[in-house]
Amino acid sequence: MICSPREAVDQLIADVLSRNCPSRQALENVGSKWGTLALLALTEGSYRFNALRRRVDGVSEKMLSQSLQALERDGLVTRNVITTIPPRVEYSLTALGSEVTVRLEALIEVLEGSMPAIDEARTAYDARGR
Amino acid sequence: MICSPREAVDQLIADVLSRNCPSRQALENVGSKWGTLALLALTEGSYRFNALRRRVDGVSEKMLSQSLQALERDGLVTRNVITTIPPRVEYSLTALGSEVTVRLEALIEVLEGSMPAIDEARTAYDARGR
Repeated sequence: MICSPREAVDQLIADVLSRNCPSRQALENVGSKWGTLALLALTEGSYRFNALRRRVDGVSEKMLSQSLQALERDGLVTRNVITTIPPRVEYSLTALGSEVTVRLEALIEVLEGSMPAIDEARTAYDARGR
Repeated sequence: MICSPREAVDQLIADVLSRNCPSRQALENVGSKWGTLALLALTEGSYRFNALRRRVDGVSEKMLSQSLQALERDGLVTRNVITTIPPRVEYSLTALGSEVTVRLEALIEVLEGSMPAIDEARTAYDARGR
């Protein structure tokens, strides 16, 4: 890993503020608009692709597919092929994906709960005409 | 707010999974690549624009400026003009911004700490040649 020595420690540790640290890409995949919403939806359980697409309101087939691939590559989401006839493909969170998503949910909860304050801030900002 | 009735409650509550809910835009501003990293850097204290730009390794002037404006509009970041000669402009987190960023830090901590597992998952995924 190409990361900064952030503290006086003996090793390089992951640091998203460092340009080339691969943790930054992982954060981008989790923080991307559709990546975040796909992870959040998957806390509800496994989803087939089309059902997940309906749950993540507004996502295109292409964007959902790209987001799931990135999350699968990072080991946060798993793609299970179930050998029924016809075969079914289901997406679910891995253990690591669940661990990450618990934190994501806590963040989203604060934002959702703060919408009255955020709305107010937006109105005040726009009224200042900047 | 145009949000879904998510539970059997008497009111509409913010729901990022709902396409038109304004909480989704707030999440996008916080979760955007440079928005996230700017918030994270501001946990270290106030920053002037150029110092913040150096701290958020790799960000362009334009992207940092746009990210800060979006976060200021949502009431997460405040822009303080200090009347020295010449005047100084400093950015810092608001109380709400701090509350949000505490959650963001928890998320980033998990990701940074999981980089060995994420690296391993990436290698396995790429070896499968998909």
